[in-house]
Parts: sequence; structure tokens; C-alpha cells
Amino acid sequence: MESLFEKLRENRESGIYPYHMPGHKRRGAGDLRPEICGDDITEIEGFDNLHDPVDILKRLQNEASELYGAEESFYLINGSTAGVLSAVSAALPVGGRILMARNCHKSVYHGVYLRGLRAAYLYPPFMEDYDIVDAVTPKQVSDALEKEPDIGAVILVSPTYEGRIADIRRIVRIVHEKDIPLIVDEAHGAHLGLTRESCENSCQAGADIVIHSVHKTLPALTQSALLHVSGPRIDRNRLRRFLRIYQTSSPSYLLMASIDSALRFMRQEGVSAMNVFARRYERMLEDLKACRVLKFLPYDRERQDLGKLVISVREAGISGKELYDRLLCRYRLQTEMAGESYVLAMFTVCDGAEAYDRMTRALLEIDRELGALSGKERRPARIAEESEFLRSGWEYGVAQKSMDPAEHTAVIPLSEAWDMEMEERELSDSAGRICGEFVSLYPPGIPVLVPGERITAENCGRIAGLLKQGLMVQGVENGRIRVIVT
Amino acid sequence: MESLFEKLRENRESGIYPYHMPGHKRRGAGDLRPEICGDDITEIEGFDNLHDPVDILKRLQNEASELYGAEESFYLINGSTAGVLSAVSAALPVGGRILMARNCHKSVYHGVYLRGLRAAYLYPPFMEDYDIVDAVTPKQVSDALEKEPDIGAVILVSPTYEGRIADIRRIVRIVHEKDIPLIVDEAHGAHLGLTRESCENSCQAGADIVIHSVHKTLPALTQSALLHVSGPRIDRNRLRRFLRIYQTSSPSYLLMASIDSALRFMRQEGVSAMNVFARRYERMLEDLKACRVLKFLPYDRERQDLGKLVISVREAGISGKELYDRLLCRYRLQTEMAGESYVLAMFTVCDGAEAYDRMTRALLEIDRELGALSGKERRPARIAEESEFLRSGWEYGVAQKSMDPAEHTAVIPLSEAWDMEMEERELSDSAGRICGEFVSLYPPGIPVLVPGERITAENCGRIAGLLKQGLMVQGVENGRIRVIVT
Repeated sequence: MESLFEKLRENRESGIYPYHMPGHKRRGAGDLRPEICGDDITEIEGFDNLHDPVDILKRLQNEASELYGAEESFYLINGSTAGVLSAVSAALPVGGRILMARNCHKSVYHGVYLRGLRAAYLYPPFMEDYDIVDAVTPKQVSDALEKEPDIGAVILVSPTYEGRIADIRRIVRIVHEKDIPLIVDEAHGAHLGLTRESCENSCQAGADIVIHSVHKTLPALTQSALLHVSGPRIDRNRLRRFLRIYQTSSPSYLLMASIDSALRFMRQEGVSAMNVFARRYERMLEDLKACRVLKFLPYDRERQDLGKLVISVREAGISGKELYDRLLCRYRLQTEMAGESYVLAMFTVCDGAEAYDRMTRALLEIDRELGALSGKERRPARIAEESEFLRSGWEYGVAQKSMDPAEHTAVIPLSEAWDMEMEERELSDSAGRICGEFVSLYPPGIPVLVPGERITAENCGRIAGLLKQGLMVQGVENGRIRVIVT
Repeated sequence: MESLFEKLRENRESGIYPYHMPGHKRRGAGDLRPEICGDDITEIEGFDNLHDPVDILKRLQNEASELYGAEESFYLINGSTAGVLSAVSAALPVGGRILMARNCHKSVYHGVYLRGLRAAYLYPPFMEDYDIVDAVTPKQVSDALEKEPDIGAVILVSPTYEGRIADIRRIVRIVHEKDIPLIVDEAHGAHLGLTRESCENSCQAGADIVIHSVHKTLPALTQSALLHVSGPRIDRNRLRRFLRIYQTSSPSYLLMASIDSALRFMRQEGVSAMNVFARRYERMLEDLKACRVLKFLPYDRERQDLGKLVISVREAGISGKELYDRLLCRYRLQTEMAGESYVLAMFTVCDGAEAYDRMTRALLEIDRELGALSGKERRPARIAEESEFLRSGWEYGVAQKSMDPAEHTAVIPLSEAWDMEMEERELSDSAGRICGEFVSLYPPGIPVLVPGERITAENCGRIAGLLKQGLMVQGVENGRIRVIVT
């Protein structure tokens, strides 16, 4: 079957004149060049309708189902965000109870708020050696479901932002024993299960709904994603309803065509591309073993995803942000994010040999420089000067460490708390109050505090620590935090 | 200030290597060419964050406010849909009462559903000569607000899909007398108020929230839109919250850059471009006055928008769909939509002289052919063969005519009805039952029936009429409709 991009090109060259939206009329104006907008159309003859597909978009979605091993698939043009909101909304009635991993994307929290759900949290294990949270374990899911018998659906993220992969197949069995649906936010794993270089994806493992950000790890445009559904536990009409609600009624054919292109590429060239990718990536990790102070999360086909390079600076005497800045300013390497004590760099099937060479050389050089310093010198001066709690934050990792369940006491359900009257407080003066806003480190945006939770002195210290390291903390403005008026 | 596209190009040419999303790494693969994906990035250094803008995106949004005359503006990348959902959600508490025009976009209905709002409808006047609905009048708004004192916000659409413009300035005064906000879905009017070729836009007229689809009438990519807010009646924090909820956390810089480009174009070249546009458009209408059986809605700076050519076939003896097909197949002119008895063609600042020439020549030729037929011949055979109610539908217009308030009896509020147990029924056997799904003609998607409304025999006849004309009716599958189990 011809690709959507091919069909768009044929339309462009057909001589048919567009008396319809979009207003650029495929010629563009200003900075919007025809190379970009030439294929940008609306629902015209022959191009089907994403919200009610019967023709080409239906066929493309069916191809996606086949590729991933799902019963039914949907192209998304408002990112995985739309998929997560739709999944959560479809899986539960208003007021239902959801079991969710605390490290879920904020869209899950938003779904809980919009639908008035009651959330129970799974706190994934903390990997002390790397200051990151791991994926949730089957035992955690099993224990939580025993403890909370009124759970109506489970949602978790795998792979995580840092590439940790959960044992979805076992978790599916546990969740299905209760005959409730498992939703996997597999936004970071659109490349999984397509070749033997990766583990199976969550559709193949039996999850009821799986969401993929096609743009994250495959060659597609930002905002493009997929939602897959299988089995009898999700009302398909309800799911379609919410997909229509949370996504624009003017979906972009550029975004849709880029999904088709990415999946077509994986079908046709995925085996060789993933093979080259894996070899280059493993070779780089091998070369980086020469580092003395920088540490790397080892690749593990089943538990640590290909391409997510987690560079730990815990023993290097600089902060994540400092390594990030050094890579960018001195080597012109833009990484994905800086955590307190690590940096995340992402590789995909589209990276050539040069990408690996540049990163390897830069890291080896930085490691040599840092390794030459004595242990005492390695702790940077500006950290040593900070207050007591910052040093303690520095020692033990900060935001991610907030995965400790003891730290989160939901006094008021999110769906109520976020609508209550609020006032602003100095962060340092907020302990004991009930939080009114999400507070999270961005990226990846995992909340340290959720509206309705009691703010602890420990929370305050950790948030202040993040701010002092120059990291971006959402929900705190000019050192002030919103709390509920009591 | 440099444009966002310029800044993206500089980044592309900087030699900085992307170890981050999107996965195409700006090179692309398969059909995704570098010309399209070369500027597609994520939130990297120097490019700010749409959901928490402090730098370039904040400046661009400020420029948008200045251009339109609003206090604060937001770039949207999930279409006007996201703007409408956010506006409705921010303006009212859960369960609040909203006064809405019945011809509002489905996203307004979706907002009502999500937030459990109670809707009161304004039924805009029906233009008998053209079978289209007009914009709502100030008197309608005033009467409704007198009758329903617990209204918390008003929302209406102007210009309508067919270009009808409401007297927003007067409506603002009426709504503000009650000290409640007016939201204007001005999706079709992003070009308004920028030059003297058009009337003022709703920001200038004093509306509290105004939503613009930049892609509809200006040279920007599909899915790009703006939300403007002014005055004290909307809680800005709450508005920002919902914009974050309903839009992907991975917003496309291509879409954002295309908004910047379109607004920059209007600032720099808008005056001359709109002037040429208006002259060409008016000249075409002048030329089309030679038509004998095809009729055109006259341009009126204050009430009928520039560029929306409504071609009425009421006296031409063919259906809207037949004219649409003839324009497409014989003349290769793709119009925006076919109604029962009219066709809508859209012109923008990006249309060259050829666009007007081709349309004028085609319509004059078709008019000559149809005008040569006698009155009796003009009624096409396939319509004459249809059943009684189809003929009556044919005579008087069908879906749009469903603006008669007497036809809509909401038995159960939308937010409850849409979640109730449903069953399928033959459309012909559904009169008297309570509707479980939206039933609407697409485009433009105005509902004939809303979940919770009693289905009348007249509704059934009209829907059947639409289907028989080959129009796309959403909410009816294989002649079956979903009704609430009673």
C-alpha cells in the first residue's frame, strides 16, 4: 500500500486546487516554506477522518496493530498525553479507584483530577547507586492489589524516562487475576518488540492498553503517538469517545504521515537498523568502561533499554547540571536532561557512527580531567558552601528520592484539593501545610508533591536543593509555593 | 526579534548534536525528509517551554497579545479544541451552568460533559434563503440571561463555519452586566481586526476569552491555534492549568514556529495582503452576479466574513453534494464542505489570482448548464425517487434546520446521559427514545442530537435524509443509533 506521504505528494501534484483549510493553501507565506506545509491538508476527499476512520487511516491503524501485536490501534496527534488521558478516562467510571506508579507522567495525575478518581500509589524501588527510580516490580503490584481490593485499573510506566523496563508479562498475569485492565505508558518504548534487539513490547506481553510516543524513539514528528488496545476489559466505544474529546478536531496529516513513515521504516529496515544501533550502542558502553569516575547504567535487554545512556556523576565531584553544561558548551553535545547526579543522553536508530564517537570522546576526556583531581577537590566549591540540607540532598539524590511512601500523605483527594482556595507561601514556611499545586522536577516531571498532600520539612529541603542546583522545578515560583487555605 | 523558524535554523546549523528526542534526530528516515523534520526539536537549551514559558515563547505570546489587542495570549498546538476545553473548564466550577450557542463546536459539548456542566442553549436564527444558521443576536443573549439567572459563563461561535459574524461588542456589554465571562470561539476569525478589511476581533470587542485557529484562515500549520484572555473574570492560574492538561507535554516547535510565522506575516505584510485579498474576493462576487440559479451569500464587513464563499444550490436543482462532486471531478476544485443545499469554499490571503479565476469560470459554466434546464428538470431524478420525508428535507434544508429549540428536549443532562447504559436501535425505530450519542453532520459537526435528548420522529426523518444524500453523519452506524437503556 502506498504511504500517506506518497498520497499527500500525489495530491499536491494533482492540480486540484484547495478551497479549504489550512489557510496557507500549501504555498505558505513568511517563514512557512512550501517544503514544510506542502503536505499539510485537512480532511479532504480520499484522506479519511482520524476521528471516524473508514479508509486509509483505518488501514494504517490496522497495520500498526499488526506490527505491535495489538487488536486495535489509534494514531494520536496530541502526544502520549492524549493517549494516557483517554486510557484512564475509558478504563474507569468517574470516582473509580486507580492503582498508579508514583513515577507516572503528569498526564496520569491530570486524568485522576479530571475524572475525580481516587489514586493509590506504587512506589518503585530506588536505585541507590544511580539516584534513579527503577520500574515497579510484579510483587509491588501484587501486594497493592491484595491490600486495596477496590482497584478498578492499574497504570504504570515502562520503560521509564531513564530506560528501566518492568516485567510486564508477569504484571499482566497478576492484574488480570483480578479481571481489571493494565494500562502501560510505554511512551519511551515505541521501538520495543519489533526486532530481537529489544524485549517484547507490552502489547505482546498482554496489556490491555499500551501507549507509544512514536516521536520519542522512532523517526516521527514530535507530538505523534499511538494507543493500542486488546482484550475485553476496555469498552472500545468509550475509548474512542475520549480520544475524540482530548484531541483536536483538525488533526495534522503531517503528524499522521510521520507515524506511518516511522512504522513503515521499522517494518522494512527495522531489523538491520536496530542491529546496527545495538552494536554501536554496546560498543560505546564497552569503550566507556575505561572511565574512572563517570559511571554508566549497564545495558540489559530485559531491564535497561537500548539507547538510554544514564551517565552518573555521583563519584565525579560535579553535579548533573555541570556535566550537562560542559557537554553542551565545550563539546556541543545537547543531552536530553540533567538530574541532580546524572545526565541522560538518548540514542536512536537515526544516530550515525559520528554520534557515538563524539559522545565517547567527550566523556573519556571529561572523565580523565575529573579523575585527575583528588577526592577532596572533586566536591565542587559551590556545593560545599551551601546549607546543610543541600549537602544532604547532594549526598543522597534529591527529587527521585521522594519516592518514599512515608513522605506522601494525601490529606485531601487530588480532584478536590486542586479546586480549593489557595494562597502563596514561602517554601521555607510551608511545612505542615497542604500543598495546592503539583511540584515536580522537569524533565521528567515526576511530582515531588501532589495537590492535597501534606508538605513535610523534608520536602521543603529537597525542593530548595533542586532549585539551588539550577534545575527546573515546576510549581514553585520565586521561592513561593501554593498551599490550600485552611 | 528573530523568528522562531530562524532560531530553529540556527540551531540546526550550529553543529550541536542532538542526544535527545525526537528520535528522527533531525535527519529523518523513510518518507520523513530532513526538509520537514530538520526544525522539529524538543525543549532544549534556549528554546523555552510552552507549558512554563519564560523566554522566547513568552515573548512570542506577548507579541500575539499586542497584535490582537488582548492582555495575555497562549500558543496552542492541539487546535482550538484545546482552547475551548480549557476556556470552558477554567470559566466555571464543576457542575456550573453555561449558556452556549447550539451551533458551537463539539469541543464545547465535550467540555460540558467532562466538567459536569449544565447547558442552556441559544438557538441562532435560521437563514431560510440559504439553509444556514446565522450567528446569535445580542437580544437572544439578553433574553436568555434574563430567563436563566444562574448562568456562570456564556460561549458562542463567531464567525460561524459559513462566515456569519455576531455583534460581539454589544453581546460583551450584555454579558458583563451580569459580571460573568464571555468566551468567543473565533476559530474561523484569526484574521479579524488586524487590518481595516475586516471588522474588529473579539479581543478588541472586549470578550474575556477568545480562541483563534491560526491554521484556518492564516498561513500556519494545521492544529495551530491561539487563546487570548483579558479582564478580571477568568482565573489565569486555572486557565494555565487546563491548557497544560489538554495539551501534550511534548509540543511541536514546527506548529509553534508556524504560528509565529503567520502572525509575523500579518504584522509585516498583512495590510497589503488583506487589501489584495479583499479586492480579488469582492471582484469574484461581482462577476458571480451573472449567475442565474446559483446564489451567493453577499459579503458584509460586519456580518459576513471575507473569504467564506457560500454557494447556494437551492434554486439550482442539484444537491450540495452534487455541486461539490462536480467542482472536484470536472474542474479539480476541492471545496471545504457540502451541505444539503450549499457548498462552502474558502479563500485566504494565500490565494493567488488563479484561484479566483478558476472558481469563477467553473461556477459560471455550471450555472449556465443548470439554468438551461427547465424548472421541472432541475429537480434531479435521484432526489425525486426518494421517500416523502427526504423530499421534505430537500425542500427546507435538513441538518441546520435542527436549530429549532422545540426539537431538543434534554431529558437527562449530557454529563450523566453519555455515561449511562446504551443499546443500538434502528434509526427508524428510535423515535421517543433518549439519545445516547451525539448525532451530527460532519463537517461542520453541529449536533442534531445531544446525549440525553428525546429523539423525535422529525429528527429521524432528517437524519435519514442526510444519509440518503451521501453526507457524513457521525453517531449513526449502518442506520443504527445508540439509545439509553430505560
